[in-house]
Amino acid sequence: MSVTAAQGFLASGVAAGIKESGDPDLALVVNRGPSRAAAGVFTSNRVQAAPVRWSRRALADGRISAVVLNSGGANACTGQAGAVDARLMAERTARELGVDPYETAVCSTGLIGVLLPMDKVTAGIGAAAARLSPEGGEDAAVAIKTTDSVHKTAVASGPGGWTVGGMAKGAGMLAPGLATMLVVLTTDADVSAPALDATLRQAVRTTFDRVDSDGCMSTNDTVLLLASGASGVTPDAADFAGAVHTVCLDLARQLTADAEGASKEIEVEVVGAASEGDAVTVGRSVARNNLLKCALHGEDPNWGRVLSAIGTTDAVFDPDRLDVAINGVWVCRDGAAGESRDKVDLSGRRIRITVDLRSGDASAVIWTNDLTAEYVHENSAYSS
Amino acid sequence: MSVTAAQGFLASGVAAGIKESGDPDLALVVNRGPSRAAAGVFTSNRVQAAPVRWSRRALADGRISAVVLNSGGANACTGQAGAVDARLMAERTARELGVDPYETAVCSTGLIGVLLPMDKVTAGIGAAAARLSPEGGEDAAVAIKTTDSVHKTAVASGPGGWTVGGMAKGAGMLAPGLATMLVVLTTDADVSAPALDATLRQAVRTTFDRVDSDGCMSTNDTVLLLASGASGVTPDAADFAGAVHTVCLDLARQLTADAEGASKEIEVEVVGAASEGDAVTVGRSVARNNLLKCALHGEDPNWGRVLSAIGTTDAVFDPDRLDVAINGVWVCRDGAAGESRDKVDLSGRRIRITVDLRSGDASAVIWTNDLTAEYVHENSAYSS
Repeated sequence: MSVTAAQGFLASGVAAGIKESGDPDLALVVNRGPSRAAAGVFTSNRVQAAPVRWSRRALADGRISAVVLNSGGANACTGQAGAVDARLMAERTARELGVDPYETAVCSTGLIGVLLPMDKVTAGIGAAAARLSPEGGEDAAVAIKTTDSVHKTAVASGPGGWTVGGMAKGAGMLAPGLATMLVVLTTDADVSAPALDATLRQAVRTTFDRVDSDGCMSTNDTVLLLASGASGVTPDAADFAGAVHTVCLDLARQLTADAEGASKEIEVEVVGAASEGDAVTVGRSVARNNLLKCALHGEDPNWGRVLSAIGTTDAVFDPDRLDVAINGVWVCRDGAAGESRDKVDLSGRRIRITVDLRSGDASAVIWTNDLTAEYVHENSAYSS
Repeated sequence: MSVTAAQGFLASGVAAGIKESGDPDLALVVNRGPSRAAAGVFTSNRVQAAPVRWSRRALADGRISAVVLNSGGANACTGQAGAVDARLMAERTARELGVDPYETAVCSTGLIGVLLPMDKVTAGIGAAAARLSPEGGEDAAVAIKTTDSVHKTAVASGPGGWTVGGMAKGAGMLAPGLATMLVVLTTDADVSAPALDATLRQAVRTTFDRVDSDGCMSTNDTVLLLASGASGVTPDAADFAGAVHTVCLDLARQLTADAEGASKEIEVEVVGAASEGDAVTVGRSVARNNLLKCALHGEDPNWGRVLSAIGTTDAVFDPDRLDVAINGVWVCRDGAAGESRDKVDLSGRRIRITVDLRSGDASAVIWTNDLTAEYVHENSAYSS
């Protein structure tokens, strides 16, 4: 499954020795065509890792033939030397595969501020090229893990015989060292680069962009979508958008489910907003409130912390007409206490908070996690 | 000391039974004049507690004769009933003291979403009025504590025989239940209400407003400055501004030092900014980065997390020309690794992070704390 579920793709994953643990840490994904159309979405952090800068340029003409990915080092904040290393990774990969280095994307993840061991990376690219296979998708997904407890893949098929598959890494966007989220999606549908771009941006906007586990935006986030056209089918645009969205949503939920240290998966649903932008702003403010995240960890339905988070935004609402439900119990009505908080059962892993701004028809969902002592522990011990 | 360090003020603190613990929980501060000039700064949270709404109106004409404060309940998100209770507190206080209820400010702190036990509050106001004294400042400071481990007071004197004193409560702005920061400052200087207002806003802007322990803005934050004029001295404006700033800074640092669960006091100093606004924006983004706060708790000089936090802002900077020092060691130069991180000693309680944006001459300091398992514990167990 994974990135090789769709026809026309080869992949592999190997242990190149970048990680001290000896775990797999280098992956290749190759598009054998006939099409090489591609699209990508990158972190909006202004401090961008060298591989992100390289891949942006490689994608400029809407074609990608291969992707080389490594875990064990983010190659971020590494200056000119890091930029050279990202280029060398692309060039070495291109030479092994006989493709154009400017059609080779590079993704790195792990600790930032440290240069990659390029001798090991280079040898690993050779070893990974030798192991490329139409069944290599799982190996590739395993090799991009950092603190992920499981590797993450998803697949969806469309009418007429085409498929969208993908892999992701990331412990809920709260990966320590900002080791970040990486996603590669592949399809054998025959779709032009501009159409891929529009489809991917729309899908990411309502899936990965709505995951906000700890409010920390990474330097390396990358989502790539490669189309081989190998199915020979040009799908209906809505069908294709639906399949891409399905795979993105599946992977996004897997990221949240595997968030480091988390004991709860929390959906913040904002309804009755004057605009989708307002709904996202309010959802994100609630999702980022450390006090609320601690309360939910302690299974305390502390709706006052929800209101105080809403109150910091510039969304359209009347403070005296706010309603909040926690797991279906409307504990806050008209900005004051509603149903008894004793009715709220927070013993399960999944929690849904619903905020009704009562100011319009727009809505959005943000996915987050609770804040736990384990999160503190994992993130205070990562690089030392 | 405290709010009775300046001439013309009486204060008291009593245990009214609002707190189940039986600890002191109700305080009065009375200005005996001759002047009743006053200024105040309130939370910018759009969800505002009933006492905040009341006190804003009371302050509208620049005169305050008395302040009644309670801990044990924030009277926030309590609807129309809460608004009535805040008014009753002012009216009862005014009747006991023979002053105008519309010159009586009300401050409440504690759990939000719960109505106050008004029978106990009313009786407590009577008891507190009976104990008013020119030495009551310490008792008042004790009575407004919630999870504070110590009560907080400060005083500064100016040339010519005038004094500024004050008290504060708040566990670093990360008080659980958003029980919030309350501050009352008093002076016997003879200063008009508009001048008090300008002085207070300027002082708060660079002291309390720069404390950002956990990014959570409260519904009850209030800072009041009352002037009795009892010294008969009209101070030089700069001298007076300096004294008010000194007291505010002293109290702000005491808040950060007492932050719940914190093991580190962190100063984020941003220099070389194109504007003070940019410096504050960058400082706040760094101060709110949970991953960095975890790293500093673990005594890990993880400068990459500083850069990733800077990168989320719209401040003027070039990512390849960012310098970062931690406790004086420039671990990041030109956006990449600088001096060895092994040189950084983070074993002490105080940590200073310096960010040089190399884009101008403006600067700002934000005070924050580390993120600890104790913070999670205290804030997941408060209301249950």
